[in-house]
Amino acid sequence: MAATMQNTVKSAPAADEPAALKGRIVLSIDAMGGDRGPAAVVAGLAKSAQKNSKIGFIVHGPKAELEPLIAKRKLGDRCVIRDAEETVTMDAKPAWVMRHGRGTSMQSALDSVRNGEADVCVSCGNTGALMALAMLRLRKLDGVNRPAIACLWPSRSPQGFNIMLDVGADIRADQTDLLQYALMGVSYARAGLNVAHPRVGLLNVGTEEHKGRAELKVAHELIESAANASDFEFVGFVEGSDLPSSRVDVIVTDGFSGNIALKTGEGTATLIRELLREAFGHSFLSRMAAVLAMTSLRRLSKKIDPRRVNGGVFMGLNGTVIKSHGSADATGVSAAVKLAFQLADSGFRKRVEARLATASATVQDQLNNE
Amino acid sequence: MAATMQNTVKSAPAADEPAALKGRIVLSIDAMGGDRGPAAVVAGLAKSAQKNSKIGFIVHGPKAELEPLIAKRKLGDRCVIRDAEETVTMDAKPAWVMRHGRGTSMQSALDSVRNGEADVCVSCGNTGALMALAMLRLRKLDGVNRPAIACLWPSRSPQGFNIMLDVGADIRADQTDLLQYALMGVSYARAGLNVAHPRVGLLNVGTEEHKGRAELKVAHELIESAANASDFEFVGFVEGSDLPSSRVDVIVTDGFSGNIALKTGEGTATLIRELLREAFGHSFLSRMAAVLAMTSLRRLSKKIDPRRVNGGVFMGLNGTVIKSHGSADATGVSAAVKLAFQLADSGFRKRVEARLATASATVQDQLNNE
Repeated sequence: MAATMQNTVKSAPAADEPAALKGRIVLSIDAMGGDRGPAAVVAGLAKSAQKNSKIGFIVHGPKAELEPLIAKRKLGDRCVIRDAEETVTMDAKPAWVMRHGRGTSMQSALDSVRNGEADVCVSCGNTGALMALAMLRLRKLDGVNRPAIACLWPSRSPQGFNIMLDVGADIRADQTDLLQYALMGVSYARAGLNVAHPRVGLLNVGTEEHKGRAELKVAHELIESAANASDFEFVGFVEGSDLPSSRVDVIVTDGFSGNIALKTGEGTATLIRELLREAFGHSFLSRMAAVLAMTSLRRLSKKIDPRRVNGGVFMGLNGTVIKSHGSADATGVSAAVKLAFQLADSGFRKRVEARLATASATVQDQLNNE
Repeated sequence: MAATMQNTVKSAPAADEPAALKGRIVLSIDAMGGDRGPAAVVAGLAKSAQKNSKIGFIVHGPKAELEPLIAKRKLGDRCVIRDAEETVTMDAKPAWVMRHGRGTSMQSALDSVRNGEADVCVSCGNTGALMALAMLRLRKLDGVNRPAIACLWPSRSPQGFNIMLDVGADIRADQTDLLQYALMGVSYARAGLNVAHPRVGLLNVGTEEHKGRAELKVAHELIESAANASDFEFVGFVEGSDLPSSRVDVIVTDGFSGNIALKTGEGTATLIRELLREAFGHSFLSRMAAVLAMTSLRRLSKKIDPRRVNGGVFMGLNGTVIKSHGSADATGVSAAVKLAFQLADSGFRKRVEARLATASATVQDQLNNE
């Protein structure tokens, strides 16, 4: 159902609401807009609630639809429902959503972060619409020109994942944007992956300093000189082959290259998964082998399961938003919720703000001196 | 050994040389510069010569070193040696090679194409140096601003591979370059992969027509209007996830994005291969399984074996150059030689030239009308 101008979002919580949320880290959940509907989202919340008693949810969507789902999962004592009749569809254009967002579960979910009721918003809705609406409702952080979307990348690093940003918030990024992405990425690595002294690399077509575009050379200098004060290690230029490596924890790039790298990696992994499945189905012997190897294959499959790295984090806004994959099932939603909890619990947003403010003063000095 | 100014390349073939090459498709081989030295290169030539009696080779490098290798492989009746004492090292800078290329096996190999003795040049040497020297010795085709490097990508398409270009000749490409890449890619798909009516896609961050950078929108129009006359199908924008898909045969992009996609795909495949190996080595049962699945795994491994897609094709020059991977072993070199033979045999170079000439007239009209 598309959004209309009618506003069905309640602006203030009912008197009995705080009980469910009291003393908990509160996450704002857009229950609508995913391919599998609100049932998969609520099932994901239940999975997370069971493992972690410190999470509470404000769930946004049509009350009549959500109430029975939440009752079935026995989540009544952990959830507050915020009635929002309208849904932003998967094919809604960003410009349309910015005009017609009122009354949608997406806008309602963002507003819970905007007005301070919740720390982080999670949505399975369409990326372009969510970013446009997030920029409108939450506004960019002071001094940030381009927000970024950060994703996790299965890797050889000890924490099992690397962070890459921007993977598609904006198709352009200049040197200052790239520096800010580095700083945001460092905060994310600390808060989300517990990496104390993150290693940052700048994506390029070669590792020699003379390679690549002009803005990359300037960004190289800016990030290098910010490393000491901001307590991270700059490893210099990295290449596409380093994305899953243990050389680096945070990979910085513009949203065009980042999006192409992300989708290429996903596409390659999918092709190999399909070929593997065919290889094991090919003969009686190979099917036998698959049975014997089941445990090992499951372990591998779990390691590269895209559902476990579900959650693009929107950064550079006054509030954190996590975009869960549109096709996420309960496991996927639960992974996004876990990440949201970690970021909220660690005071991620305040840390990013502080880091950007300190660094931007230094950079301004440096750019002025050049 | 680095190149010096002394020129040890013989400029004219000896009187007895043509016998070995007579009636054969002649390939010019730079035997030096690869990580495994000339022995691996000559072993690769022997592999190809055994399968295909129509190939002859002009092999460039230090005669004293090459002669025993060629004698050992019994290749004397298929090879002509061109003595060149100097080697372009893996870390040689393009600018250095352009000044000091004389006397190197790389320049000597390119010159055999330049003076018409050979149809295609194959080298394992360093990419940047090879491209710089190729541009200097062969010159760009009339009307081509930026040459491109095309690579093969294992895919779901019937021919088993898709073509992507540019993967790193230049970090920039404007709309006209992208159109030319499309046309070169179509010729390559016909000559190298026997695809009669290739499907071309333009790499972007989304498939909707309003997405991406300005030059991509113009390139979309240009390629679309060239499709009919040049007898290919334009499928529009494609994403990173489409690279290994069966939606498309030729993927067009700038050298920056193309290089990042290529290396990301390779990195992802390597990570999964390593994880698979670990999974199968993990326990007694899984090692048993690996034994049982051997045939199937070998089949899969062959399908995604990077040695089988060895060979970046330099296009847009007066002559075709194939860059074989620096670490190529005999199998890898033989794959590059096979590709070189196919392109030479099909009159690839003349076809590209004709196609670009026809299309450039049309495009000029179109750009003038806008």
